[in-house]
Amino acid sequence: MSESFAARAAALDAADPLADRRKLFTLDDTVYLDGNSLGALPAHVPARVQEVLTREWGELRIRSWDESGWWTAPERIGDRIAPLVGAAAGQIVVSDSTSVNVFKAVVAATRLAPQGRDEILVDATTFPTDGYIAESAARMTGHRLVPVAPAEVPGALGPRTAAVLLNHVDYRTGRLHDLPGLTAAVHEAGAIAVWDLCHSAGALPVGLDEHGVDLAVGCTYKYLNGGPGSPAYIYVAERHQAAFDSPLPGWTSHADPFGMTPRYTPADGAVRGRVGTPDIVSMLTLEASLDVWDGVSIDEVRAKSLALTDFFLMCVARYAPEGRAPSITPARAERGSQAALRCEDAEPVMSELIARGVVGDLRRPDVLRFGFTPLYVGFADVERAARVLGEVLAER
Amino acid sequence: MSESFAARAAALDAADPLADRRKLFTLDDTVYLDGNSLGALPAHVPARVQEVLTREWGELRIRSWDESGWWTAPERIGDRIAPLVGAAAGQIVVSDSTSVNVFKAVVAATRLAPQGRDEILVDATTFPTDGYIAESAARMTGHRLVPVAPAEVPGALGPRTAAVLLNHVDYRTGRLHDLPGLTAAVHEAGAIAVWDLCHSAGALPVGLDEHGVDLAVGCTYKYLNGGPGSPAYIYVAERHQAAFDSPLPGWTSHADPFGMTPRYTPADGAVRGRVGTPDIVSMLTLEASLDVWDGVSIDEVRAKSLALTDFFLMCVARYAPEGRAPSITPARAERGSQAALRCEDAEPVMSELIARGVVGDLRRPDVLRFGFTPLYVGFADVERAARVLGEVLAER
Repeated sequence: MSESFAARAAALDAADPLADRRKLFTLDDTVYLDGNSLGALPAHVPARVQEVLTREWGELRIRSWDESGWWTAPERIGDRIAPLVGAAAGQIVVSDSTSVNVFKAVVAATRLAPQGRDEILVDATTFPTDGYIAESAARMTGHRLVPVAPAEVPGALGPRTAAVLLNHVDYRTGRLHDLPGLTAAVHEAGAIAVWDLCHSAGALPVGLDEHGVDLAVGCTYKYLNGGPGSPAYIYVAERHQAAFDSPLPGWTSHADPFGMTPRYTPADGAVRGRVGTPDIVSMLTLEASLDVWDGVSIDEVRAKSLALTDFFLMCVARYAPEGRAPSITPARAERGSQAALRCEDAEPVMSELIARGVVGDLRRPDVLRFGFTPLYVGFADVERAARVLGEVLAER
Repeated sequence: MSESFAARAAALDAADPLADRRKLFTLDDTVYLDGNSLGALPAHVPARVQEVLTREWGELRIRSWDESGWWTAPERIGDRIAPLVGAAAGQIVVSDSTSVNVFKAVVAATRLAPQGRDEILVDATTFPTDGYIAESAARMTGHRLVPVAPAEVPGALGPRTAAVLLNHVDYRTGRLHDLPGLTAAVHEAGAIAVWDLCHSAGALPVGLDEHGVDLAVGCTYKYLNGGPGSPAYIYVAERHQAAFDSPLPGWTSHADPFGMTPRYTPADGAVRGRVGTPDIVSMLTLEASLDVWDGVSIDEVRAKSLALTDFFLMCVARYAPEGRAPSITPARAERGSQAALRCEDAEPVMSELIARGVVGDLRRPDVLRFGFTPLYVGFADVERAARVLGEVLAER
């Protein structure tokens, strides 16, 4: 039986239009299903970073702020991320961490919302940092924080709602939320929609402009492969830029940053989302990493992602002892690019999987999480991962 | 006459106990007097960063969060900066930009201050970002922002003062402010003292613990040579850590960050100053850069810094046409590690200096700024810089 799945994997790999991307990455013989935690290293990046260090920093030094394009890196790299999330140029800047961008976005959202509204709705199932930061934003802007499950957002919206912070894909279960529908509902209530794209950008189409999203944030170290803790980004829809009022108005978002004037005058455009001096080494590491996306269609990525998760779940159903690790992966229409299995002994099972060369992730207490990064994960990897998982589950 | 200054420079270089540090840096034949804007590259750093990229990211991937010590980098690197600013271990974390840390520190300061106080004093001559961010902090916490010159702080303090944000060294003139005296005055008024160390850390003794500073922030890309836009740090004095209430309570400052609980419970200690996922590539670039400080006494650095600025001003007085570029550099007791000259045509003069291999900095409209980084600037550099400046000024 496993022969037949192995053969099917080989056929799927042979027909995969993205198969040639794999050679752009540094990979070994492990099956790496944790790209939704930390993307793999694009092989050309170390040489590029070396040049940044030795030539741009070491030789040109401060001249690189102009001559090597350091100063404009946040918006230039933002424009490279833009097509991956369905945004026209000029609306994204790379800057800070996701958490800091959540703070900017939620506070700014309350200031964009109609006056007199006093509630912020936040995804109750969100990655915790979004909730912690939203709570601080609510406290500092005098709003009430209302945690709600995404499905219940439409019912919770009302004339008191100023802003809504939602995750496009749930970090734990991999559930894809209805960004178009929820954004429309938020707008109908007259509120501002803020989306966290950490688990969707680079894995599936987002369509920020098409669906009229107001503000969005995301990290770059998962499906975008920017490196450990690489800088995050913020999207400010063009129609909101003139009124975008950042709670972190650092000098690099000033209209005349080198004028060093005591009064703050924000720059025009998305650069208003900048704060302090851009962190060049990690920004340019990210910029180089984005080369692997050249010529890639995000629709192709999505098609392969769904095929990978389907195939994985099919293999698990075959290889794993019945009932031992039931899938809590959502159905296709609501699936991100990961599969989640509920497993009582998730922690030791994942340790053993890793020891046998299958690297997934754990969400305590009882979720095995497997991320599928279509640029470098193939169907043979998936078959092997499910097979090893079946062995581990049977043995324990 | 220039022969005699050249000879004196040679003698001073020969007697310099820090002269051996210069070879640790990648330098060329320019005179680099802009280390107070961007420190030079320590020569061993590119190889170390290469290892971070290829081995830690490329091969170990997520295992590096534990195995390569990524997770604890913010506090580990903070502990390496600590002795340079006179702090015991456990009080500094590296994280975010200076601007973001100013926000954390000023907001947290208002929460540490006695209830009912409604004013934040801020250095009116500060680097603008501190003022912009303090204004946002004041707005969001319901305080009144009062800009005052540092010398006037004692007179402006009162029962309404919650917090005071000051720069240790003025970025424009290089004036060193009286950190011990001003901190004591702030405390006498019952308020919280926040210091920005961007232009002093690594250039002169700070004595955070000795002088009872409450909170401090600083960048690492000037005298600490951490690389362009390398992450900043925040100091939270041990006595304030239990009550430190960050406006940016990101998941990595949680007591149990991987518990992913919906309720925020802050960690103990300075790690409470962390926010999002640490930016590893730039953090470890910084960490490697700090090696050049091993065995260096900050008192020796200060002694050389003063000798360099004295010698520079003496050479300028001799070489420059009278009255053409008067020094606005403060006297020794109030001097940072830079010299400032007022010059009507500062912009073209600096361009010409740079074209002739002397790299200083410009603060518009009319200030020539020269930074002296004792680890790699020598007295012969200083003589040459002054001599070329004299030629440029005479020719224009």
